[in-house]
Amino acid sequence: MQSTAAARWARQSPCCCTPSLAPLSTPPQIRPYEPADWPAVWALLEPVFRAGETFPHDPSIPEAEARLSWVEQSQAVMVAVDAGGAVVGSYYLRPNSLCLGAHVANAGYVVAAHCRRQRIGSRLCQHSLQAARRLGFRAMQFNLVVSTNTAGIHCWQQNGFQIVGTLPGAFRHRQLGYVDALVMVQRLVEGPER
Amino acid sequence: MQSTAAARWARQSPCCCTPSLAPLSTPPQIRPYEPADWPAVWALLEPVFRAGETFPHDPSIPEAEARLSWVEQSQAVMVAVDAGGAVVGSYYLRPNSLCLGAHVANAGYVVAAHCRRQRIGSRLCQHSLQAARRLGFRAMQFNLVVSTNTAGIHCWQQNGFQIVGTLPGAFRHRQLGYVDALVMVQRLVEGPER
Repeated sequence: MQSTAAARWARQSPCCCTPSLAPLSTPPQIRPYEPADWPAVWALLEPVFRAGETFPHDPSIPEAEARLSWVEQSQAVMVAVDAGGAVVGSYYLRPNSLCLGAHVANAGYVVAAHCRRQRIGSRLCQHSLQAARRLGFRAMQFNLVVSTNTAGIHCWQQNGFQIVGTLPGAFRHRQLGYVDALVMVQRLVEGPER
Repeated sequence: MQSTAAARWARQSPCCCTPSLAPLSTPPQIRPYEPADWPAVWALLEPVFRAGETFPHDPSIPEAEARLSWVEQSQAVMVAVDAGGAVVGSYYLRPNSLCLGAHVANAGYVVAAHCRRQRIGSRLCQHSLQAARRLGFRAMQFNLVVSTNTAGIHCWQQNGFQIVGTLPGAFRHRQLGYVDALVMVQRLVEGPER
């Protein structure tokens, strides 16, 4: 009984140090981020930023700067929570450029390490595309998709993104050195441009 | 005599209201921007921003915000000056992304309307590429080259940039509506990436 209770507690806990290896029994709910979520979101983001393999941020980014980047500079931030209310993923959504390019959205995603391969990233991606459409964005663009992030690339292609260009050596991977990065785009409107 | 003197004064003046239509007799000198140059740089930038045809900034951008964007947020800013010391062009140079993408430079250029077709843009571009190499950048990237800016695209291709991708409808041209934008890149280092 004790181990079952511990496993349940681990599934429900936002602490990244006590992951459950069991898949989520129900798909996570995706809801708006609240300020009280930050410690749980940071617990997901910190190892990803520190690894320096997917996001261009300084791997030694301070927590406050990460919060500024993920939360304060975004138009919308959502979290995926499991049945027990633990945060297992998050995304941000914002304009990709200034005024005359602000009809194109940009988004970033993070999923708890112990919840990978459960299509949570895919659910977050689909949710962000719906949110972008609702907010009136005409396209979504990822500017610097690290070419070695094959799981992410596959996920985004499965969800309708196309690779529109390759940037040679544009990402300084912490383990691999300079690697190519991709520009990926998905249009969100049909018909002629004007 | 009066008209000759007026023409010479007009050539030397940084005021965009009194342009000389005569080509510069000598190539412009390119030197570091100084704070006293701002009124002259703004006189070049303002009509370009207001037109909303090449830069993504809000066409009604206030002067202070434009200065922040062109000068304060840049790693280097240069101006091209004619024989009389009048500013006839400018460029900025900065990292194109955060830490792990900061080895790729980004630059933006402006040339006085009355000095177009004199290869000043090309000189600024070549100067910026040399400056980027000196500063240790490994590539230069333009993220949102408006597809209708054929003169700019031709200039950058002539100076070694390649189109690596097309972003459908990514720029809201003030006259033409949504038009495609290009991602253009030039590597500044030879050999293997790592």
